[in-house]
Amino acid sequence: MERIELIQQVLALLKAEQWDALERHLDEMAVQDIATAMADMDVEDARRVLGLLPRDRRPRVFAYLSPALQYALLMALPAEEGRYILYRLLPDDRTALLERLDAANLEALLKLLSPENVKEALRLLGYPEKSAGRLMTPKAIAVRPGWTVGQALDYVREQSEAGETVNVVFVTDARGALLGRMRLRDFILGRAERGVEELMDPDPVTVLASESQEEAARLMKHYDLEVLPVVDPTGVLLGIVTVDDVIDVVEEEATEDFHKMASVGALNLSLREARPSLLYRKRVGWLVMLVFMNIFGGAAIAHFEATIEAVIALVFFLPLIVDSGGNAGSQAATLMVRALATGDVRMKDWLRLWGKELGVASALGVTMGVAVSFIGLWRGGPDVALVVALAMVFVVIVGSMIGMLLPFILARFNMDPATASAPLITSIADICGIMIYFSIATAILSVPVG
Amino acid sequence: MERIELIQQVLALLKAEQWDALERHLDEMAVQDIATAMADMDVEDARRVLGLLPRDRRPRVFAYLSPALQYALLMALPAEEGRYILYRLLPDDRTALLERLDAANLEALLKLLSPENVKEALRLLGYPEKSAGRLMTPKAIAVRPGWTVGQALDYVREQSEAGETVNVVFVTDARGALLGRMRLRDFILGRAERGVEELMDPDPVTVLASESQEEAARLMKHYDLEVLPVVDPTGVLLGIVTVDDVIDVVEEEATEDFHKMASVGALNLSLREARPSLLYRKRVGWLVMLVFMNIFGGAAIAHFEATIEAVIALVFFLPLIVDSGGNAGSQAATLMVRALATGDVRMKDWLRLWGKELGVASALGVTMGVAVSFIGLWRGGPDVALVVALAMVFVVIVGSMIGMLLPFILARFNMDPATASAPLITSIADICGIMIYFSIATAILSVPVG
Repeated sequence: MERIELIQQVLALLKAEQWDALERHLDEMAVQDIATAMADMDVEDARRVLGLLPRDRRPRVFAYLSPALQYALLMALPAEEGRYILYRLLPDDRTALLERLDAANLEALLKLLSPENVKEALRLLGYPEKSAGRLMTPKAIAVRPGWTVGQALDYVREQSEAGETVNVVFVTDARGALLGRMRLRDFILGRAERGVEELMDPDPVTVLASESQEEAARLMKHYDLEVLPVVDPTGVLLGIVTVDDVIDVVEEEATEDFHKMASVGALNLSLREARPSLLYRKRVGWLVMLVFMNIFGGAAIAHFEATIEAVIALVFFLPLIVDSGGNAGSQAATLMVRALATGDVRMKDWLRLWGKELGVASALGVTMGVAVSFIGLWRGGPDVALVVALAMVFVVIVGSMIGMLLPFILARFNMDPATASAPLITSIADICGIMIYFSIATAILSVPVG
Repeated sequence: MERIELIQQVLALLKAEQWDALERHLDEMAVQDIATAMADMDVEDARRVLGLLPRDRRPRVFAYLSPALQYALLMALPAEEGRYILYRLLPDDRTALLERLDAANLEALLKLLSPENVKEALRLLGYPEKSAGRLMTPKAIAVRPGWTVGQALDYVREQSEAGETVNVVFVTDARGALLGRMRLRDFILGRAERGVEELMDPDPVTVLASESQEEAARLMKHYDLEVLPVVDPTGVLLGIVTVDDVIDVVEEEATEDFHKMASVGALNLSLREARPSLLYRKRVGWLVMLVFMNIFGGAAIAHFEATIEAVIALVFFLPLIVDSGGNAGSQAATLMVRALATGDVRMKDWLRLWGKELGVASALGVTMGVAVSFIGLWRGGPDVALVVALAMVFVVIVGSMIGMLLPFILARFNMDPATASAPLITSIADICGIMIYFSIATAILSVPVG
């Protein structure tokens, strides 16, 4: 509550143009909250608020803004001010901004940077998209194995401005190859005259710069790390990934899976900021593809036209039965996709899960069959009741099996299991459902097939 | 890769009963990897592996096992050994185990604990489920504001065994009320003779023990905290939440939303370990409810029986058109639900997003209408093509609007937006789709209504 009031107060003071009161109010606020308040402003107001902050606070607020607002601000600010902010950003935050820009905007911004900063930025942008190299901050404090704890501590004190975190200090050889890590608490607890080599953890978990951010996140989660060293193939320490970055990766990964599960292409930016044309492009592909899949559903119906014409009452139950297969399948697929994504379930578990799903789906099918048989009795008499009940049992079981197995099949062929989206499962289950329903109807009601 | 090999090696050595080699192999492994290997074993084997570890490593491996295996092991181990492990677990890990047990099992385990541990456990279990109090570890190192940095450092050295983390040290008054926080790096960088009060950050972000884990996670994410102090309503420091717990909360939250989006009740435990009866219960409710919703879809079809009998070819297009509305609606709903969950979009944004969605949905509808008109021409001639194209445009727009608005409407009435699941949207869109499609067909093809 209080936080929202703080933010609303910023907007109120801004509107009232009470600059002194606003400046005092901003002094009391955390940089993250100032950034949140600025997200709702136009560039002109955002620039004004930034100007009211003490100079050394500006880059820290800037780091929490959205890339779109960051770019707009840099273009609106005097070149010297923009240069100062870019220079003071942590390299991983700078990379996060630069990688979102198109070529022309990127060039405009690179002009603001010093030659070394440009070199560093281009090196970081040289790592593949969504790699650990893009995520890392290329500054880490490293001490030598031959030093004493006292010497190392002095060095850490000296260097602490340069590194993003000093809770963990790394130990490297003269070439820069990673030899071990020390936690700051071990420094404090260890005696000053003891050797670094003696106290360090000699076999730290590392990630290659070229590996994926997901892999980095998985390692940090699995080993409960606050800092993960990033190395090149020869073992040279390139930088570190910190745990706050990992929370973002976990969220982004989940968002991507959410979008895929609904047959939306993954949005790499905020829904609020996404332009309609991008949203259109991300959605239209699957929608059109699913239409063409549904032609098979239509063809299945056409195949049974004679059955339908003979017992038109059957069409009444079509949405009930066909949707139930898709719904049960979506449930099964979502459970599997999420369990595969979090590592709860692995590929080799598929057979055991298949057995379990068959049991659960049969129970669900029978329950639903009984439920729908009453509707069948009421609308069409005992024959129709038998048809819809039997069809429901099979449709739910078949839908569940498709939903359960498809994620594993996709994973087996190195595709993302989340491609087994609810709409895809629904379309496949529809086709199967129509075939099952009308086949059973044709057999039991002994009507001719189209 | 290497990690998987390490784990497979454990299973191989276990099977070959090479105890000495297994013991040496385990010595080389991280506790988290040993726990991963044990997850695939029966209790007997897991007990054997635990017995091969040095005694002080056992609780650390134990902490990473699933609650089910933890409980089974504690029951299989001699009482004294179980007591030792429980005693050495961090309190938040202990709470995580105890809160999963039913009353009888809980009682059995509490017998193993010392009276103080029982008191502590019961106090933690007294906080509401999924509250910050349940998540916290009730040990935090706290120093006094009047101390010098040197004194505080000596105290931290002394106490460091007791606290889960010493990267952040809190400052409290005699009553235990939180006054500020100091990062360990500030200790190292500060001069020993300076006062704690002078160096501490005097207004730390806190969370009440009774607040939700989600709120704790949001605060830590927003303010980039590694440690969040948990306080009671009078400001007394009760414990801390650490960032590794937050990653778990973010994942659990996303999993819950995934399940809801597929109309599955949230599973609070692993899919691998969930019993079929639980899975059945979590799934059957929504499935049956959706069947009854689909009766309206069936009724809509029945209403147009005469139209269908007159132009039976219309049934061919039913899955195409009706599914497209559900698919577009699922896309829109998922985009909104996820954006609301991550905080990308807020309630007050709904009108702006509605306008954007209307534009995107219209473009999508027209694209799909054009696509389907060709199929209409091929299967039914120009009249049918016009009907299906028009129907498609409206069905996609209406489906998208339902999908976009329903999460906001649910949130407005304090329900979880994720309740706007793909199956629910599909069912609602089906009913609307059938009405739209056959109404247009009836009007254009001038056939009688049922």
